[in-house]
Amino acid sequence: MFRRRFRLVFSLLFATAIMFSHFASLSARSDQDSAFSAAPPRTLIRNASLMLTMDPNLGDGLLGQLENADILLEGDTIVAVGHNLNGEGARVIDATGKIVMPGFVDTHNHLWQSLIRGCAHDESLDEWLFQCVVPFRAASLPVSEQDAYNGVRYSTLDLIGTGVTTVVEVSHAFTPEFVRGSVRALTDSGLRFAYSYTGNSQPATIQHIRAVKEEFIDPNPLASLQVGSHPVPANFSNGNLQAMVALAKEFDVPLNVHLLEGASQRRDEPLKLLEQSGAFPDVQVIGNHGIHITDQEIADYLVKYDIRLTHNPLSNMRLASGFMRLHELHAAGVKVGLGLDGGSNDTSDFFNTMRIAVGIQRGRFMTADVYPSVPEVLRMATLGGAELLDMDDEIGSLTPGKKADLIIINPRAINFGRAMDLVAQLVFNGQPQNVEWVFVNGRALLADGKYVGVNPDKVIDAVEESMIKVKRELEPFLK
Amino acid sequence: MFRRRFRLVFSLLFATAIMFSHFASLSARSDQDSAFSAAPPRTLIRNASLMLTMDPNLGDGLLGQLENADILLEGDTIVAVGHNLNGEGARVIDATGKIVMPGFVDTHNHLWQSLIRGCAHDESLDEWLFQCVVPFRAASLPVSEQDAYNGVRYSTLDLIGTGVTTVVEVSHAFTPEFVRGSVRALTDSGLRFAYSYTGNSQPATIQHIRAVKEEFIDPNPLASLQVGSHPVPANFSNGNLQAMVALAKEFDVPLNVHLLEGASQRRDEPLKLLEQSGAFPDVQVIGNHGIHITDQEIADYLVKYDIRLTHNPLSNMRLASGFMRLHELHAAGVKVGLGLDGGSNDTSDFFNTMRIAVGIQRGRFMTADVYPSVPEVLRMATLGGAELLDMDDEIGSLTPGKKADLIIINPRAINFGRAMDLVAQLVFNGQPQNVEWVFVNGRALLADGKYVGVNPDKVIDAVEESMIKVKRELEPFLK
Repeated sequence: MFRRRFRLVFSLLFATAIMFSHFASLSARSDQDSAFSAAPPRTLIRNASLMLTMDPNLGDGLLGQLENADILLEGDTIVAVGHNLNGEGARVIDATGKIVMPGFVDTHNHLWQSLIRGCAHDESLDEWLFQCVVPFRAASLPVSEQDAYNGVRYSTLDLIGTGVTTVVEVSHAFTPEFVRGSVRALTDSGLRFAYSYTGNSQPATIQHIRAVKEEFIDPNPLASLQVGSHPVPANFSNGNLQAMVALAKEFDVPLNVHLLEGASQRRDEPLKLLEQSGAFPDVQVIGNHGIHITDQEIADYLVKYDIRLTHNPLSNMRLASGFMRLHELHAAGVKVGLGLDGGSNDTSDFFNTMRIAVGIQRGRFMTADVYPSVPEVLRMATLGGAELLDMDDEIGSLTPGKKADLIIINPRAINFGRAMDLVAQLVFNGQPQNVEWVFVNGRALLADGKYVGVNPDKVIDAVEESMIKVKRELEPFLK
Repeated sequence: MFRRRFRLVFSLLFATAIMFSHFASLSARSDQDSAFSAAPPRTLIRNASLMLTMDPNLGDGLLGQLENADILLEGDTIVAVGHNLNGEGARVIDATGKIVMPGFVDTHNHLWQSLIRGCAHDESLDEWLFQCVVPFRAASLPVSEQDAYNGVRYSTLDLIGTGVTTVVEVSHAFTPEFVRGSVRALTDSGLRFAYSYTGNSQPATIQHIRAVKEEFIDPNPLASLQVGSHPVPANFSNGNLQAMVALAKEFDVPLNVHLLEGASQRRDEPLKLLEQSGAFPDVQVIGNHGIHITDQEIADYLVKYDIRLTHNPLSNMRLASGFMRLHELHAAGVKVGLGLDGGSNDTSDFFNTMRIAVGIQRGRFMTADVYPSVPEVLRMATLGGAELLDMDDEIGSLTPGKKADLIIINPRAINFGRAMDLVAQLVFNGQPQNVEWVFVNGRALLADGKYVGVNPDKVIDAVEESMIKVKRELEPFLK
């Protein structure tokens, strides 16, 4: 029953070109000071009880651990890591008793989906899509620019609150207005982001992607572009997939796709479609979820073409997609990053995402001797994500010369236990409420537990108005 | 290698009678006002946007939902639930915009294990036990009364912070001093608790259990007793198991055991040992974890003798024990409650425990059409836990006449999304930081986000001293 209905509407809507009614000017600027224009001061973070540099050349072990260490930021850059650094003229933050580490790299999200948190809570992936996402593909049910802005802005605060400093926003790009609202909110957030524009073969769409790139992405040192498609037969038949492959080549940016998230996607043979679209070997493909990939496909496609995967364990559990075979994928040499997929797992808690990424593999194999270990998942959540995005020359570790994207965590809290093993506690006990400072590109987005330059109450008020509207619009589709 | 070493030491230590060196007087009282002596005032909690009464006679659906509802507490009791209640003379708490529901019932914990948070973080159950728990069975490595107090007190604050109002403390009861420290901390916490005393056949132990019952449990309306054992062959050979079965019968209290948590426990045939010890059908057995139970055992033992199970998903993932077959157990009619098992999953987050209990079954079956659904897990976390403990005439729902154990949650937060489905958000998005008020027996333990009658900083200082000591003592055992 469902399957028939789903396939019908899916073919009609999801795989059809988006009908852009008009292309409003992109000249509207963020209504805040541009997040990337401020010149941040020198900042010395001193005496961190534990510093996880993620650089084995700087400290002990896989995580490059240091104790009682300082880090000096100048402008947008880390200039020194060590002991007793000279902080003359710098703003000083005392990190005694605290943990300093790179910010989390959230390799997969749909930030606008905060607007549909809680939707179809006891349904599996396909039915959830049908009830809560697909309706917005219809021109009669748009998400306005303001709604998109409100949803994305709200989600970015949630990301900052859990210590994320870089996010890959896989945008459904329903309309040009939706895109503008989304990108403006990301820009205002001050986060480093990759915006994946899910496009199609319509000339108007291609033109809009170029315009977004020129106006919003290229001028922003914190932003980068990806292009997205959905590797299903309809998108191959109508040339949408090929168009995005061509654009990825032209721009030399990754192609971001959902890849075998649900078992029902096996019938689409998405890897063959990508191959037939000319994606391999030239295009860097980032595949999200990758739960139902066969061993043969790991060898024939993922390893051969260096396809990278995002792992979104909380979303996969919420939507009943299954357990990713992370241990096996890692053993085969596939690069995998962690993602919140905030819209579909509802929540944004990177500590929990790490915890469950560890736990699922231990549960599957009934031994703790599997990937990822506690240090491995911390690396995966930071430098691993940066590697997946080919941004590891810029972010992911506290190596001098890299951008100053880092967080300070206060483990003096009821939910921690500092004495035995603080590294393990980050993974097993960390909660967003323990994150005190978040720096992106040298600029504090969270300072001593408070959001900087934004009033969260106003963001909540705004998003609730949009949520109520969205709920009303979705009601005819909800079971 | 490990297995040999483990079995040797396990037989020597774990299955051996605890050698009590002396029995100090039990006369020392809590160093705070007794938590249960205060007579709380009338309290009216008014206009909760969402009230989950868990009583279908009071409101809609499985969770007995009400909107814009009031609840009136008098002394230790809920006296009324409804709209526009008369709160004359009552302290009024405005719950506009907030969620009111029964507190969580944590059916399984070892609160002292906050002292070993982070221990052996990349090891499976047996090795973790060997390195982090078994050493304390040796008389040469005691946990002092003060250390036990500090660890348990710290954990109780963590429980209160996540909205737990009743906890089953499965105590290792290493020494009489340890027991006294544990029970004093529980008493001081103001939580409702069952103290499961893990005992043996030594007359001195039996005598001490009687003394604890008389001095600490019986006079405290918030406390109840369970007795515990570990159903392994050695405990059968030396009569420890039989002694605890006999005591459970005499006191008419549950026998609390760890039941097939790890796959290696299959060889012990614990259900046969329980049967041979005379536990069935007279003793109410509560089995913790129950991951490696066969279908045959479900029919022959669990259903036949109404054995109840605690489900501790985060602990089971951390220690690589496996995934409980919760869906199948529920379908067979077995009563299962949720537990934090805080020591071995390290963390205390009941929202996350619910979320993962849902997610594991969805991951296993790759459909959301399995037990528990979102409403079912909320019921399981509250009334289900009370039923497991045969305390559902007293707690677990907001039914007038029951004890006033309830929590107030503020969903106006960056991590929530209030508009679409607030019930789902509790499970998918809730975090401990959203819990604002916790009432046990009519008394506020958390008020507007602040702990009542206790300084958490002092508790942290105290526990860290104990943690450092414990770490030093464990170091020879750590790999």
